[in-house]
Amino acid sequence: MTRSDEAVVELADRAKEGDQRALGRLITLVENGGAQVRQVAAALPVVHRAARVIGLTGSPGVGKSTTTTALVTGYRKQGLRVAVLAVDPSSPFTGGAILGDRVRMQEHALDPEVFIRSMSSRGHLGGLAAATPQVLRVLEASGFDVILIETVGVGQAEVDIAGLADTTLVLLAPGMGDGIQAVKAGILEVADVFVINKSDRDGADATLRDIRSMMALVTREPNEWRQPIVKTVAHRGEGIDELIEAVDKHRDWLAEHGELDRRRRERAKAEISAIVLGALARRHVVTDEISERVATADIDPYSAADEILGDAVEIPGT
Amino acid sequence: MTRSDEAVVELADRAKEGDQRALGRLITLVENGGAQVRQVAAALPVVHRAARVIGLTGSPGVGKSTTTTALVTGYRKQGLRVAVLAVDPSSPFTGGAILGDRVRMQEHALDPEVFIRSMSSRGHLGGLAAATPQVLRVLEASGFDVILIETVGVGQAEVDIAGLADTTLVLLAPGMGDGIQAVKAGILEVADVFVINKSDRDGADATLRDIRSMMALVTREPNEWRQPIVKTVAHRGEGIDELIEAVDKHRDWLAEHGELDRRRRERAKAEISAIVLGALARRHVVTDEISERVATADIDPYSAADEILGDAVEIPGT
Repeated sequence: MTRSDEAVVELADRAKEGDQRALGRLITLVENGGAQVRQVAAALPVVHRAARVIGLTGSPGVGKSTTTTALVTGYRKQGLRVAVLAVDPSSPFTGGAILGDRVRMQEHALDPEVFIRSMSSRGHLGGLAAATPQVLRVLEASGFDVILIETVGVGQAEVDIAGLADTTLVLLAPGMGDGIQAVKAGILEVADVFVINKSDRDGADATLRDIRSMMALVTREPNEWRQPIVKTVAHRGEGIDELIEAVDKHRDWLAEHGELDRRRRERAKAEISAIVLGALARRHVVTDEISERVATADIDPYSAADEILGDAVEIPGT
Repeated sequence: MTRSDEAVVELADRAKEGDQRALGRLITLVENGGAQVRQVAAALPVVHRAARVIGLTGSPGVGKSTTTTALVTGYRKQGLRVAVLAVDPSSPFTGGAILGDRVRMQEHALDPEVFIRSMSSRGHLGGLAAATPQVLRVLEASGFDVILIETVGVGQAEVDIAGLADTTLVLLAPGMGDGIQAVKAGILEVADVFVINKSDRDGADATLRDIRSMMALVTREPNEWRQPIVKTVAHRGEGIDELIEAVDKHRDWLAEHGELDRRRRERAKAEISAIVLGALARRHVVTDEISERVATADIDPYSAADEILGDAVEIPGT
């Protein structure tokens, strides 16, 4: 065992004992994607714990951070250890101004049983899709009971990240665009629980009706999960107990239907795929020179791919 | 030349003559990702035309479709041929209800010089990131002067797609969440032109100030592009001439600074990478069995990747 191996094992031991600084350093190692990611992965096998991984997503302005904060308060009341991962897929900044709304989470900043971490996609090999499952593993292995992943927006990256959660909450707020706009972003498909936040505002019932009519369009198997719709006013803590109950029910349903294991296997698959494709992309580099030849129509992109791979790219359905 | 080659070449010839049905069929071939994608790529080399590729992005509700429609009207007045690509990265539906707002574009539906197409990510090998550059190539080679790509949301997928455009318009509307929320989604980085739509509403000046203070935080080289901010009321056509002028100015700047060629090379690189990685992913499958072993902590994900690749995954920085 090298000295660097020993250092990682020591950090891992301290993280498991609740040392937040050690945990932070392990996550930084994973984020940086350097040689030590292998050692971190080896030092922190995920023993099958009962950690609940909960994703929160929704358009800017619906109150994701406020709802996350209220959920932390709710789970802390149950005595559970909580980690929050705030994911900004394309934030050009880290720290500083951008973390303005993180300030609202200050009430939990001094609680040693609450760990809060922001992640942006900068400097992640293979992007957030690659780094997030690894960070999740570090948090799970360090013994957190609840992991909340908060993502900005409802694009494909968010859908991918939501796919890492056991339960995904899709937040809406009255007056943030009509139902069709919401469904356009594909939220119906990723939602396990709908949350209408700011439900004391005008239009909450209209939002509720919009979700119901969208749900009515989808045909379901009899034993399929039917997303509940929970109304909250997160900044006053209203509806948060009901939301936690809805998450618990979804978790029970997952366990009963073998879905919990399936989702964990999918999460592992996403992590392995990101590592495999990252390694392959480094071996088969698309050079500026060959890109230039395609841009100037010297060759077509499939012939360029053949050149890079050294054999003919097979197209499925051939 | 096989019969299927001949059929593709004939479709390509008809598309170049302005036959919209032939063009639609070529795009379907590309979207389906079957064997004929190679033939389409070969039959439609992009001769270096002056097509302007313009991306529009922004949160749901800011008026992207209305602005797109107004831009189509503006460019048609100049006698230009216009294609619109409406990209729903995660729409679970195609056609039907989801295309509700496409109805607003009906005024252009019968114009033979305007081609409108919706794309969702379903059934695209390698996702939209793979299919979109190929569809762009078909449209460019078919002789469109302007290609508008409208994307929903501001997630990573949208940022990637925006990266395919020569000029990216980021749309905001008053009262759609504060400036910090907007920047969280990384829009400052992808925007070439900011559009404050619905600028007749309360709060338009506050939105303008928010963008200006965000821009002030970023240090720039003296010769760097400084994003203009254009106010529009798209449903009344107000500000659209100014917007088209801003796009023209950005294009001139790109050409002067060699950026137009660089962006086109990047677009080619994205297309080749998607083809290369798609082929590699099909050769190196992450099985359920190995995912299960990682999920149950039998092996760590890096060892799993080693097994799949048949040698040790190199981690950069080792």
